[in-house]
Amino acid sequence: MTGKTNPGNYFEDFAPGQEIVHATPRTVSEGDVSLYTALYGSRFAVQSSDILAMSLGYEAAPVDDFLAFHIVFGKTVSDISLNAVANLGYASGRFGGAVYPGDTLRAVSSVIGVKENSNGKTGVVYVHTTGLNQRDEPVLDFVRWVMVNKRDPSAAAPEPVIPTLDAFVGERELVVPGGLDLSNYDCTLSGSSLLWDDYQVGEKIDHVDAMTIEESEHMMAARLFQNSARVHFNQHAEKQGRFARRIVYGGHIISLARALSFNGLANAFHVAAINAGTHVAPTFAGDTVYAWSEVLGKTKIPGRGDIGALRVRTVAVKDNSCAAFPDKDTDGKYAPSVVLDFDYAVLMPRKP
Amino acid sequence: MTGKTNPGNYFEDFAPGQEIVHATPRTVSEGDVSLYTALYGSRFAVQSSDILAMSLGYEAAPVDDFLAFHIVFGKTVSDISLNAVANLGYASGRFGGAVYPGDTLRAVSSVIGVKENSNGKTGVVYVHTTGLNQRDEPVLDFVRWVMVNKRDPSAAAPEPVIPTLDAFVGERELVVPGGLDLSNYDCTLSGSSLLWDDYQVGEKIDHVDAMTIEESEHMMAARLFQNSARVHFNQHAEKQGRFARRIVYGGHIISLARALSFNGLANAFHVAAINAGTHVAPTFAGDTVYAWSEVLGKTKIPGRGDIGALRVRTVAVKDNSCAAFPDKDTDGKYAPSVVLDFDYAVLMPRKP
Amino acid sequence: MTGKTNPGNYFEDFAPGQEIVHATPRTVSEGDVSLYTALYGSRFAVQSSDILAMSLGYEAAPVDDFLAFHIVFGKTVSDISLNAVANLGYASGRFGGAVYPGDTLRAVSSVIGVKENSNGKTGVVYVHTTGLNQRDEPVLDFVRWVMVNKRDPSAAAPEPVIPTLDAFVGERELVVPGGLDLSNYDCTLSGSSLLWDDYQVGEKIDHVDAMTIEESEHMMAARLFQNSARVHFNQHAEKQGRFARRIVYGGHIISLARALSFNGLANAFHVAAINAGTHVAPTFAGDTVYAWSEVLGKTKIPGRGDIGALRVRTVAVKDNSCAAFPDKDTDGKYAPSVVLDFDYAVLMPRKP
Repeated sequence: MTGKTNPGNYFEDFAPGQEIVHATPRTVSEGDVSLYTALYGSRFAVQSSDILAMSLGYEAAPVDDFLAFHIVFGKTVSDISLNAVANLGYASGRFGGAVYPGDTLRAVSSVIGVKENSNGKTGVVYVHTTGLNQRDEPVLDFVRWVMVNKRDPSAAAPEPVIPTLDAFVGERELVVPGGLDLSNYDCTLSGSSLLWDDYQVGEKIDHVDAMTIEESEHMMAARLFQNSARVHFNQHAEKQGRFARRIVYGGHIISLARALSFNGLANAFHVAAINAGTHVAPTFAGDTVYAWSEVLGKTKIPGRGDIGALRVRTVAVKDNSCAAFPDKDTDGKYAPSVVLDFDYAVLMPRKP
Repeated sequence: MTGKTNPGNYFEDFAPGQEIVHATPRTVSEGDVSLYTALYGSRFAVQSSDILAMSLGYEAAPVDDFLAFHIVFGKTVSDISLNAVANLGYASGRFGGAVYPGDTLRAVSSVIGVKENSNGKTGVVYVHTTGLNQRDEPVLDFVRWVMVNKRDPSAAAPEPVIPTLDAFVGERELVVPGGLDLSNYDCTLSGSSLLWDDYQVGEKIDHVDAMTIEESEHMMAARLFQNSARVHFNQHAEKQGRFARRIVYGGHIISLARALSFNGLANAFHVAAINAGTHVAPTFAGDTVYAWSEVLGKTKIPGRGDIGALRVRTVAVKDNSCAAFPDKDTDGKYAPSVVLDFDYAVLMPRKP
Repeated sequence: MTGKTNPGNYFEDFAPGQEIVHATPRTVSEGDVSLYTALYGSRFAVQSSDILAMSLGYEAAPVDDFLAFHIVFGKTVSDISLNAVANLGYASGRFGGAVYPGDTLRAVSSVIGVKENSNGKTGVVYVHTTGLNQRDEPVLDFVRWVMVNKRDPSAAAPEPVIPTLDAFVGERELVVPGGLDLSNYDCTLSGSSLLWDDYQVGEKIDHVDAMTIEESEHMMAARLFQNSARVHFNQHAEKQGRFARRIVYGGHIISLARALSFNGLANAFHVAAINAGTHVAPTFAGDTVYAWSEVLGKTKIPGRGDIGALRVRTVAVKDNSCAAFPDKDTDGKYAPSVVLDFDYAVLMPRKP
């Protein structure tokens, strides 16, 4: 090797206040939308039909919120998590205006915290990432924290900085995409008559359907998102690794869970926030992903009579029906089948 | 479960005269076209080149007729066949004007027949489905009948209503997409000099080529079509099922057979009708699909000297060459390798 | 069979001077670009972002050079290599102006050489293929030679004609896409600060990353390119064949190697020439492809101070790290892990 390749950043390379402009801006296209549909089978009507979306005030069918998220996330991998041991969590994710095919996304991050682990070999890095479109408008931003290897275990530990993160995104920070007017919302075409008013806090929904993951699918997804994390792609190396297999990109499970949630949350037409998220266990090709959701909260949107927000926790589970809602126990220990615990906010039409 | 999910309709839920508006309208895009090409490898020139299509009077390259069919079909699954035991047949399928990227398709169905089976556990439902574009023009319609479970085996049987279905779509019902003029048809670019005049009734063609199906391919196809039938996706459940495997969406075989038929029917540039179709046996990942065709009829198109129609029967076969034309015997029993028997009409240029 | 299918050409069917117009012109779309990204994970910024491409003088993000190459190549298979035993080599490949989504490509070839092999069963055919866009402008041309079966081993051998081929494409033949001005080139967004000036002749780069190939991926790729070679698709037949498996389209490896080369050659924003190429060994699903490159030459582009060309040799390797640069030995015998030896020219920005 001649120093021409990117070795990725190590724990020592991160310092609070550091700004990182990520490479490879990406024009999102109708082709990306079709692949997203083919990979996840999403059936939310707003993202499927230009005509329906325009009847609600969108310029066209917006791309799936998690397609935008994964594209922005993918750009950060080479700089943030190429030497990461684990993706520990998400918080404070907010989706701004709609992203349409033709928009060009880029990503910038700032380091907002570092803390060396007591073993001296790794540390936790907290990063705030923003996705911007071609007009430099933020389309989404989020915080994530990852455990990253140190280059040199003998290097001195930095002063720990741990950011204060809200438990969830407040109702005043939830953005309704500009120009929306849901008075024409069509519950026949959306696939369900259940609106915001019909959901109760504490209610649990088994989404019933499930998807078995294939190697080519999760790799095509990660490549579509230009995610360069090696563990997803190289079976020759991974067969010597911790799991002897390629690891599925965690975001693949988020998108599968969101698509499965259509059956029960069909009118949750937009994801407005990511409150928290944990990849509880890795997933692999051959795993079958089920999902269930719990309504954690309901909020009105200030100034809007037509739209409400639900705070939802969707739990993805592998190789196990969700009829019994597999969850964590009172000690916080997850059932062995749980792979994702995702707390987010969705927008939903209210009854007139 | 809290009643928030769609349990699908059971036999008792269907009654003749009932109208169903299906959910999730879909804007067809260039991305769908590319995925269709990647999944089936179709080489028909009209659907491949805007320039060539426009030279014949199309506005642009139309999307493959079966891409439109599968998208419309997919919308009906949640309402019609979520609790279906078997997809029994197709009839009276007619393709209208061309579908282009940018068109938005939706589907409506009417129930035209019901008949309880003698076992009292299932019944047959006959449905007429129409796909409409954003101008409310029908782009295709077809009848299918499915065997559906009863919710309650003790429920009384309805008065049987069995629709009268034509054996095939008559020549006067075959629609030539508007504005077509084949005087510039280029047999070099289309890949074959064989025109309508060169085919004889009774002639059989072994399409020679074959495609092995992978799990990710048939699942990506079904998801692209937003087909929600569970048997295609959930290996964890299906391993306990009748075949211990996920079942390939029947339409996947139709599209594979149509793409394979290019080698022998390269100038069959448009599918104008589906006369009849039977999924003789299920297919699974790992199966290799071959196809052969028989010319069942030839008709001129009233008022057109440049275009003729062939009535073709294409038989798809698995894990067996079609050199010997595997078929049904004189008792109507199919050879074990046959998976699809599909009777349809194609348009083809005539010799000047 | 009734003579309706294409049996492909045999060695006797080729004669020097023969011109072949290939079938199935193809409009390249944004869907093709997305699939290309999903199949290879390419991260070159110019092909990823319309905004960035336009800042350099492109009309939009051009499609990947090898996407255009594979589409043109795919058209030639039915006429040139359906009965080929082996794809022996490439030479004199030149890429012209940029190809954009919306362009329609077609392919024409001329036979420039034939030589029967001494066994009397096969012969080598040399073909010069040109890809043209809708304005009849050449977008790429190349020579390839293939070993083709004779239809009749007793047929007389033709007079051998072996074309003279240059070892590499000269600097004066390298085309800079029209209107380019790299003064706004952004090394942050491109992912590397290393420019033409930073590379030395003789330098070797291990691209570090690797991709494991799945059956569905290489088949989807070959179908996207409308490549009809049977060995890629039919496991039922191939299990009786030489390798008992489907063979991956050789071009799939070229594209994987090019995408992997981003890590080390991120600013090689355009492939301008193919000097030579050999598929050293076949690849199969399950193989993991690594790549390394060697800088064979550096040339300035006449009249351009902003752009230089590197002549690069990229070697793709399977199931073996490239840390030790697996190569051929002094007798020209390749290490068993080498699958591709590809000599080409890339354009790269020069330091201001």
